[in-house]
Amino acid sequence: PRTLNLAVVAGDGIGTEVVEQGLLVLDAALAGTGTTVSTTDFDLGARRWHATGETLSDADLDAIRTHDAILLGAIGDPSVPSGVLERGLLLKLRFALDHYVNLRPGKLFPGVTSPLANPGDVDFVVVREGTEGPYVGNGGAIRVGTPHEVANEVSVNTAFGVERVVRDAFARAAARPRKKLTLVHKHNVLVHAGHLWRRTVEAVNAEFPDVTVDYLHVDAATIFLVTNPSRFDVIVTDNLFGDILTDLAAAITGGIGLAASANINPDRTAPSMFEPVHGSAPDIAGQGKADPTATVLSVALLLDHVGLPEQARRVEAAVAADLAERDGRVRSTAEVGKDLAARIAG
Amino acid sequence: PRTLNLAVVAGDGIGTEVVEQGLLVLDAALAGTGTTVSTTDFDLGARRWHATGETLSDADLDAIRTHDAILLGAIGDPSVPSGVLERGLLLKLRFALDHYVNLRPGKLFPGVTSPLANPGDVDFVVVREGTEGPYVGNGGAIRVGTPHEVANEVSVNTAFGVERVVRDAFARAAARPRKKLTLVHKHNVLVHAGHLWRRTVEAVNAEFPDVTVDYLHVDAATIFLVTNPSRFDVIVTDNLFGDILTDLAAAITGGIGLAASANINPDRTAPSMFEPVHGSAPDIAGQGKADPTATVLSVALLLDHVGLPEQARRVEAAVAADLAERDGRVRSTAEVGKDLAARIAG
Ligand SMILES: CC(C)[C@H](C(=O)O)[C@@H](O)C(=O)O
Ligand SMILES: CC(C)[C@H](C(=O)O)[C@@H](O)C(=O)O
Repeated sequence: PRTLNLAVVAGDGIGTEVVEQGLLVLDAALAGTGTTVSTTDFDLGARRWHATGETLSDADLDAIRTHDAILLGAIGDPSVPSGVLERGLLLKLRFALDHYVNLRPGKLFPGVTSPLANPGDVDFVVVREGTEGPYVGNGGAIRVGTPHEVANEVSVNTAFGVERVVRDAFARAAARPRKKLTLVHKHNVLVHAGHLWRRTVEAVNAEFPDVTVDYLHVDAATIFLVTNPSRFDVIVTDNLFGDILTDLAAAITGGIGLAASANINPDRTAPSMFEPVHGSAPDIAGQGKADPTATVLSVALLLDHVGLPEQARRVEAAVAADLAERDGRVRSTAEVGKDLAARIAG
Repeated sequence: PRTLNLAVVAGDGIGTEVVEQGLLVLDAALAGTGTTVSTTDFDLGARRWHATGETLSDADLDAIRTHDAILLGAIGDPSVPSGVLERGLLLKLRFALDHYVNLRPGKLFPGVTSPLANPGDVDFVVVREGTEGPYVGNGGAIRVGTPHEVANEVSVNTAFGVERVVRDAFARAAARPRKKLTLVHKHNVLVHAGHLWRRTVEAVNAEFPDVTVDYLHVDAATIFLVTNPSRFDVIVTDNLFGDILTDLAAAITGGIGLAASANINPDRTAPSMFEPVHGSAPDIAGQGKADPTATVLSVALLLDHVGLPEQARRVEAAVAADLAERDGRVRSTAEVGKDLAARIAG
């Protein structure tokens, strides 16, 4: 008998609604395994910020660190100035806990409608770097609000940071049937960062000789994502390009209501974090309209990470079966969660 | 009788092929207007670089400056190290000639197949900033090739630079029936640059009170481009986001074979440059397979810029008619050009 200590950051808007269903499904998936879940709720996000001015205190961060994993719903509200919760909470978690692999599958499940006329067989994963690039917060501005304002943003890329995420992406590619890795960057313009990425991919390829590598500029990658998404197997890319590509990937595979993500610390020096790609969606919050599927698929990624791949596959199979039979039926957030849990209980 | 002095940079790969047809159509459009074209060819690109090591000499740049406009085919070849021609020639032209408005229409012509199942009525323009952002070339790297390499890229954004392109975008939006402007950025992460863009859009909106403004993060914008592209009227965005969005926009409106662009210096302190969005496509170069339509539509943008809007509309009408009747017929580059010129001649 083992206890999975889970830090739960339900967050804002629909975050609480989808996390509730994610936990329900997690319980169902663990039934009979001997593993049980113990959750600690962390009240973080817009409400906490309004009440206390805090985004993520050192005490909360330390407490989160003691857990095996984190389940996050969604962070953000229009009432909070842009950047405050993103930089002070969500990105702070990703950076402080060294989530250098931001894993985002792009899979079109049977029965799901894509906006593409002929999507083909879409099944890839994006390995987005999570701790570097233009997300580091090294920008600044002078003469703000004057006609002479200059606002800079700095993308920082290190051999250390690029190599570890590239190696992770190669390992994932090597474990997949097609064994194909596509580096996406913009090395014809961002020559310093781009060439570091390119050289690193070439070098690490020697350790994974059976993986085929190709390269696309980020602009061209968006073209292929809508004209030939089945060409992709594993994509490795930087933090910002990964942000953009994974929203597009979500769109072509049925929308962000279905898009899962894992912020992984592969070295396990801190807990990894599992969260849907979507945001807090204040427009539909509190109405039971949010699709918890993205969170449920993120729970599957969590199960993989904690060494329960069989349970992960059961969750995915339940989602696949549910999606195949949806047929435009409208259910509440809780109904979808209950149906998925019931399928898993089987 | 007026002479239009045109600097022609046919460039590499399919560049020469498509430019030839662009010039043919330009001649046809000007027939009977009293304006004639005088071209100066500039031998720039991969061949020149291999032969002389030069990308763009001061003498060539000075000579180009004396022209009324530039028609550019495509620059680049795999035999040239990445970044050399992009930074040393294409971007050098855009920066040196202060092409701060990179205008890229996203229009789905009747008869053109979109990869989207239900594209709807797609007709927007992207106003991409052309002289700032991560394109400024202010990056650098230390300890290159060692495990301690750090490679930085700097995005520079100035009040001066943002305001002038935002004002141009507002003016374009005000002149369109829907009068809608969407700012695309990522101000929740790139807080300094993003807030400069946001404040600037808010401020300039006061000069254009009849223009409706909204905002999308770049990741969300890619979603809407595939799920609801008809929501867009005018998009204003930075250099890198504009690069990404306009390739995606090209993809959903029939591909880069049809996507036109104008690098405009609205102050007319230097010649503007008109070029298809596509590259040199070495894989199909010299085979007469390239679609010259993107170049022809760029010629229409050129005609607008030199004060011949009637002729611009005739070129666009010819393209629209040609596209409506294509029906999968395969023609050579030269045949398409000849057909378009013939339509314009009437
Ligand atoms: C909310 C925002 C900071 C975040 C990001 O840009 O990473 C989100 O878009 C995501 O993809 O998880
Ligand atoms: C070739 C490259 C430098 C260029 C750019 O990034 O601007 C191209 O992609 C474009 O969009 O015109």
